[in-house]
Amino acid sequence: MKVKVVTKILEANDRIALENRRLFDKAGVFVVNLMSAPGAGKTSVLEKTLAQGTGLRIGVIEGDIAGSDDAERIEKFGIPVVQINTGGACHLDANMIYEALGDLPLAGLDLLFIENVGNLVCPAEFKVGEDMKVMLLSVTEGHDKPLKYPLMFQESSALILNKMDLVPHTDVDISKIRKDALSLNPALKIFEVSCRTGEGIGEWAAWLGGQARKG
Amino acid sequence: MKVKVVTKILEANDRIALENRRLFDKAGVFVVNLMSAPGAGKTSVLEKTLAQGTGLRIGVIEGDIAGSDDAERIEKFGIPVVQINTGGACHLDANMIYEALGDLPLAGLDLLFIENVGNLVCPAEFKVGEDMKVMLLSVTEGHDKPLKYPLMFQESSALILNKMDLVPHTDVDISKIRKDALSLNPALKIFEVSCRTGEGIGEWAAWLGGQARKG
Repeated sequence: MKVKVVTKILEANDRIALENRRLFDKAGVFVVNLMSAPGAGKTSVLEKTLAQGTGLRIGVIEGDIAGSDDAERIEKFGIPVVQINTGGACHLDANMIYEALGDLPLAGLDLLFIENVGNLVCPAEFKVGEDMKVMLLSVTEGHDKPLKYPLMFQESSALILNKMDLVPHTDVDISKIRKDALSLNPALKIFEVSCRTGEGIGEWAAWLGGQARKG
Repeated sequence: MKVKVVTKILEANDRIALENRRLFDKAGVFVVNLMSAPGAGKTSVLEKTLAQGTGLRIGVIEGDIAGSDDAERIEKFGIPVVQINTGGACHLDANMIYEALGDLPLAGLDLLFIENVGNLVCPAEFKVGEDMKVMLLSVTEGHDKPLKYPLMFQESSALILNKMDLVPHTDVDISKIRKDALSLNPALKIFEVSCRTGEGIGEWAAWLGGQARKG
């Protein structure tokens, strides 16, 4: 019975996600659904990407259970940002995004980041109308994560390995992460970055800009 | 409508959790529901606690979306362990635990650890019949987590701050984590540990043993 309920919720969600997608296409905006476990550095990667510059007009939707810390960090860049508080829900769904779109100047954007709630499971199941899913994994989370949370690795177009500066202080095996992630998703594009040192941000931002321009 | 569905699921869950609790009380076993984000170190803390020794007969239920890596790590200690694969669900629920209990020698245990799926959100909403919830936070996840994931901090009796050895290599503010966590839950017991160096494990294990004996 539980499975039936979940199926119905997912079907309703996918219909609204399609409607969002129509609005995004009409406005000519490329949409990235950014996902990770809590504290992997989604907002930090956004900050570094915005600071790096992509030549694109960027907007951001921030998703959190509670609080507006992340939206305040992004607002400092002077770009449009909307904070969604899910009030307990562990992921963003298409309807939450639909209701936030009225507060964004979509037609004036080239790229919209949707920063999902920190969670390696449910966000991967709920489409929001995005062009592309991108996931972050902090290297401190360990090399067993691809095989333990396979759906997110399968659904994502790109994997950003963040906090690479901490590798020497841990026992993490980056080659195992790469091998297992690619076995789940051979087309996965992998970036090794550190928001602290700036390593790899330029390569990621250049690739992202190319994807957005291809649309 | 979605809220109604969630309420019904939670009501059904709580009935089964009560039944689990009756079985635990009858067997005289103290049950800890161990929760954290992915990669915070739940299995490592279990390993270190088992290695430290508590004088208690301990069993473990491992919850994961997929895989049996964690159960294999615990099995090396020669204690009873059951692996639950949720097949996609982002948390353990009471029924999953109920179905696993047949595979455990409950009457021969003093303490049962239930290691939940790595997720800072949903596990806090689903009782499984535990005596106590304990959460881990890896310091690398950052000091903004208590205010962003308040329910888990409110529901837990103890907070284990893990990977303390990495603090000097990050910008994390431990005093802010303590302050915000205690503002959400003034009774929260906080332990600072490092599974890598062993720091703080003795204090945690001693406290846990005391709780289980009071049980």
